[in-house]
This record gives sequence, C-alpha cells and structure tokens, in this order.
Amino acid sequence: MSRPVYGRAWQRAESYLTHEMKNLGLSVQRDAVGNLYGELPGSRPDLLPIWTGSHIDSVPHGGCYDGVAGILAGMEAARLLRAGGKAYPRTLSVNVYAGEEMSRFGVCCIGSRALSGKLCEESLTSSVDPDTGETLREAMEHAGVEVERYADDFARRPKVYASLELHIEQGDRLEQAGIPIGIVTGICAPTNFYVDVYGTQGHAGGVPMDSRRDACMAACEIGLALEQLARTSKGEYLTATVGSMETFPGTPSVIPGRVRLSVDIRAIREQDKAKLADDFRRVAEEIAMRRGVRVVFREPSDDLPVHCDDRLRRLLAAKAAELDYPSMPLISGPYHDSLFLHAFSPVAMLFVPSKGGISHDRREDTSLEDIAKGTDVLAYALDVLLSRTGE
Amino acid sequence: MSRPVYGRAWQRAESYLTHEMKNLGLSVQRDAVGNLYGELPGSRPDLLPIWTGSHIDSVPHGGCYDGVAGILAGMEAARLLRAGGKAYPRTLSVNVYAGEEMSRFGVCCIGSRALSGKLCEESLTSSVDPDTGETLREAMEHAGVEVERYADDFARRPKVYASLELHIEQGDRLEQAGIPIGIVTGICAPTNFYVDVYGTQGHAGGVPMDSRRDACMAACEIGLALEQLARTSKGEYLTATVGSMETFPGTPSVIPGRVRLSVDIRAIREQDKAKLADDFRRVAEEIAMRRGVRVVFREPSDDLPVHCDDRLRRLLAAKAAELDYPSMPLISGPYHDSLFLHAFSPVAMLFVPSKGGISHDRREDTSLEDIAKGTDVLAYALDVLLSRTGE
Repeated sequence: MSRPVYGRAWQRAESYLTHEMKNLGLSVQRDAVGNLYGELPGSRPDLLPIWTGSHIDSVPHGGCYDGVAGILAGMEAARLLRAGGKAYPRTLSVNVYAGEEMSRFGVCCIGSRALSGKLCEESLTSSVDPDTGETLREAMEHAGVEVERYADDFARRPKVYASLELHIEQGDRLEQAGIPIGIVTGICAPTNFYVDVYGTQGHAGGVPMDSRRDACMAACEIGLALEQLARTSKGEYLTATVGSMETFPGTPSVIPGRVRLSVDIRAIREQDKAKLADDFRRVAEEIAMRRGVRVVFREPSDDLPVHCDDRLRRLLAAKAAELDYPSMPLISGPYHDSLFLHAFSPVAMLFVPSKGGISHDRREDTSLEDIAKGTDVLAYALDVLLSRTGE
Repeated sequence: MSRPVYGRAWQRAESYLTHEMKNLGLSVQRDAVGNLYGELPGSRPDLLPIWTGSHIDSVPHGGCYDGVAGILAGMEAARLLRAGGKAYPRTLSVNVYAGEEMSRFGVCCIGSRALSGKLCEESLTSSVDPDTGETLREAMEHAGVEVERYADDFARRPKVYASLELHIEQGDRLEQAGIPIGIVTGICAPTNFYVDVYGTQGHAGGVPMDSRRDACMAACEIGLALEQLARTSKGEYLTATVGSMETFPGTPSVIPGRVRLSVDIRAIREQDKAKLADDFRRVAEEIAMRRGVRVVFREPSDDLPVHCDDRLRRLLAAKAAELDYPSMPLISGPYHDSLFLHAFSPVAMLFVPSKGGISHDRREDTSLEDIAKGTDVLAYALDVLLSRTGE
C-alpha cells in the first residue's frame, strides 16, 4: 500500500470516502488542505461539535490499517448512531485529516497541523517532494485542493468539544497481553533532523585505509551511537531510529564523500527527547572529530508530546467495561493527528491490536473482530458525548 | 563531470575524439562495443601493433583527468612521433576503451573486457542501468554502437606486441614523494558484491528499542566490521570500501526492513582478497545472527590482479631517467583497462601525480606539467617499441 498524500491513489480514496459518507447521510465538506468533514448535524448548532477520524495517506509500501481503521470505525459509528434514531443535540463530524505521514514532504500531520495553526502558509512552498520536485502547495493544487482558501479556512482554530481517534496500536503490547482495547494515556512526539556527514570522496582502490575520511564509515558509527544512547537511556518510552542513510555519490568504486542520515527520536517526556538529542549531537561531533569528517544537523523539527484528556479516557474505559471488552492504558510511541488536534480540543485515542506489532509494512494486520470491538467502544462513547448539552 | 558510458556526454566525447584523431592523421575505427582505435599505420603490416590508450567514461560527479589524461597523452605522443618524420615498421593504435568505470552497469572495463574474451554476449542483456532500466545492449544501441557485430569482432583475442597506458595515480604517493612519474608494477583487481540485510520493517515510534530487528543498524555494524578487517589485515596493498548503502523504504519514520551495501575489496595478491572476503562473510553472518537479521551476498564479481611486464617497466624507467624525470615503482590500487588487455598483450602503465591524492571527485587535479612529463616518457618508449622488428 503506497498512498502518499495528494497523490492519485490518495485522491481516489478521498473521492471514494466522500461517496460513502454521502451514502451514510453525512454532509461532506473539504477544506483548503484537503481535510474531509462528514457531518451528522445535531439539533443545537450553538453547541460545540464532536470530532472523530484519522488519515488515509500511507508511508511507501505501508499497510492497510494505519489511519484507515480509524476512518472506517468513525463512519460505522456514525451509521450506528444514525440508525439508532436518537436526535442528538451535538453535531458529529467524521474527519479525514490530510497527510499524517511525513514520508512525502518531510512534514507530518499536514491537515491537523494546519487546523492547529502550526503550519504557516509560507511553508507550503518550502516543503518539496524530493521524488517529483513538487512543492507541498503545487501537490495540493494538482490534487484539486482549493489551497487559495488557506488564509480564510485557517484564520482561527476550530472550536470542538471533544475529539476521539481509533487507531491500530503499531506495537505488540495489546497482542502480548491478549487485550483488544488500548486506552491511550499520552502520545509521544517526534524530534526529527538530518545529519549530513561530509568526508573526502575518493577512489576505492586509490586511497589506503589509514588515509581515508570516509563519510560512510563515520555515518555508520554515528548511527550505532544513536542506537546505543537510546538503549541505555533512562527516559520513559524512548525510541531513536535511523530511517534512511543516503550515500553520495553512492557507487561501489567510490569512497562516499557525503552521507545523509535521518534521525527520529520519540519520547513521552519532552525533557527525555531533548537530553537524548543533545547527547547524540555531542557524540556525533566526537566521532566526526576523531575521523576527520564534519557533521551538520539540518531541518530540525520538534513537536511536543501530549497527554490525553482524563475524562475522555475514563469514558472510553467505562464503555469498554460495559461492553465486557478488556482494556488497558497505553502510551503511543507513534504520533497521530490527535497530537495537533489537542491544540483546540480535549483528545483521546483508542488502540486496537496490531498482529505481531508490525506496522508501516505490507504485513500490517488487525482482525476485523478487534476493529469491531474498538468501533463499539467508539460508538458508545460518542453516544454519550453527542447527548451532552453542557459547556 | 558525469560521463556515464554510452550516455549523451560520452557519445559527444567519442565524436570529438574521432574528429581530433582524424585531424592528427590517424585512421579511426570503432568496434562492436564502442572502443575507438586511432591508427598510425607502420610500414610492416606483418608485425604486431603497439597499443596505447585509456577511457573517457566517468563515475557520477567524477573528475576531468581519470582516463582522459591517458587518451590525450596517447594522441599527443602520436602527434610527436608523426611530426618526427620517422618511418616506423610497427603500427601504433591510440585506443579509447568503452566503459572502464563500473558505476553505470555494475560491470567494469566493458571495452577491454570484451577484447579479452571475458564478457560473453549474453551478459549484455543481463546488466541493467538501475536509473534508466536500459540493458547494457540497449544502451549500446541507443548510443549508435553496432553491437550486432559483437560475435564477429570478438571471435578471437587481438594480437598486440605491447600495450602502454598513462593514467593519473588516484592516490598521493607520487605527490608525497615529490616524484612526477610512477612506473606501475602491478594492478590490484576488485572483488565486488552486494550485501542485502533483511530485518523487520516497523514503525519508528511503535517498536521498542529492544524488540527491533533493524536492518540499518545491522548494516552499520557490518560496514564497520569490513573497515576493521581491512585495517588490521596483514595483506599487501589491501583496501575495502562500502561505496553505497541503500535503506528501504528509506523514510524517517520507518525502521528499515532492508538495507543494501556495496562491498569493494582490492589487493595485489589474490589470496589476500579471498581471505578478507571470507573473513568478512563470516563476521557479517555473526552480526546478523546476533541481531536477528538475515544477510545475503549477491552479484559477486572477482577479477585477478595483474603484474606488469618487466621489460616494458624497465623501458619506461629508462626513458624517464634519460629525460631526467625522477620515477618510482608503484602498485595500482585502482583497476584499469590494462588489467584486461593483459589477457592478450604484455602491459605496462605510467602514473602521473594526483593533487592531494583526490580522484573520483570533481576536485581531481593533475598539473599539465606533470602530464607533459608523462607524455614525454610515453612517446619515447613508444618510439623504441614501434621501431622494433623482432617477434
């Protein structure tokens, strides 16, 4: 499954969802970055709406459940609630947030970030898809997104009473525990940057081993140092990943003169991320000095971890208990759109198990039975929230 | 300078050289893989010819001197010998060998390999340019090379009395010694293969550090192990290089499930290469087992080192001494077309200094004065060889 945001497969998926949402009786709108809103209007337009939803874009060669499970669960919950015949005072909106994955433009959560006010319009022209050369803004235009309405649509943050997101766990803790429902307590946020290692390009047969300033060997050592720091760190829920290593010129007979590593650090506590990033920069500089190469840290981005709303978490846990589905609290290592929705709404998330903990891979799998259980909990919680008439 | 073999820049360079060779009074022919031969005919067609030449293709973002210096030195030597007005019994051929660099098709020395009988016609359709998808044969056809004559042209090895090649050193030993002329004693040959590391792809935030089977971290450790083995090996003139590392899917938020490393091992003694390759495979397997990943060694190629002809070496050294140019014996770490010409001709090589030892890089540089000295030695040696009438 390769469904990069604003690409043709993504456009077809949005068209399909629009069609299906209309079939469910939802009124569908699209905003200036391509977020979709499928509304089931309540009887009291003065009350703040309830949101649920997730994303449909994927990483390259990703799986079928990441994001999509949350969209379909939200749509099924809307169908159930509508079929129940109850007149709710609050409006429910089932949302598809555009571009949660950072893999195409190096920016994660484009849609929810725009809603949160943390994506300035200027940055739409500075983010570029390295494969096609398109800027983020051009890709939006090519996808038929009315980006010219950007300033109007995101002049102020929306007002939302509560936001719930169902998602696959992308780890194996639920499966290991034999529990179908995870109630997310907090969402780790990534710190991302690139490390460019500059050595001396040279001929693989021409430069003796002890005269080399090999950017690739330095990069390997730097990558392993990151892994070692993350493994020995005392931080809570801490991961560090080198997702890509690019060698230049990248041909067998040439000692690489430059290597670019991507670094992704996540933790549930901001200070743990900051300490790991600082320690890593220092160790990388030491390795570079010893090997006679230079390191430059580029394109840093840093998002803040979020704690989920206690009342919403308790509501979800109570509904799971009523339905007799075992649940457990979990920290989310992966980020989600809820990380940004938190800027203007109380948020909570439900996790369903990922088989073998595998995600961002074609083997990603979750049983329909578990998705159905998660959808039940979501629908019962929405039923309560939609009925509330207080502030 | 990016001049991949059979590409447009390469085609233009061959046209230019053909034109310039004709201007020098050479008769120019091209064979079925695009090798060019600029002949200055001798008076006795029954005597075997003398060859000199090198290549004009380059690695991506390479320099201006690698290969080209030898072509221009050969042409200038031909001009000097012709201007001298002497009638030589033997024919001189100034040759441009096609595709010395392996960077486009993963095969080195296409032209001289074909001449040596070590490039079977079938392999022309199995080697592919990963960037364009063209097979080697298609690329030849697109470049206007008459590859349909392959079987005829390479039915038997040519008969050649002696072959001399001038080349830049691509190391810094001449510069360090302050000596303008290197007389090559032997040419190291590469052993090349790829190591594919298979781990478990996963979400950068979803998989705890101690549950990972990270193909990238294993590849880093394997790369560093190769460097360590080469550094501590007791072999003579031994190098080992990881020229490229490719991460799949290669996006910051995904733990790589597969990494491909290119490995290049060179030595002047075949047994040193074989031992290093064996040791490396064993260590890579150990690392893979410890990290729970799998390694596969692919596309092995292995060429034999060559010792240069003693009589030709002594001739070159004597001519340098007559011209009062200091010279020194050198082993060539890089391979050259002479490695394959050795299959049917005594070979010798002249090196001129590379500034800072830099090669396969845009900063590659050799002074014109040093190239002129090398050309003098080449011309004087050719003068002797072309005059000989013995077997």
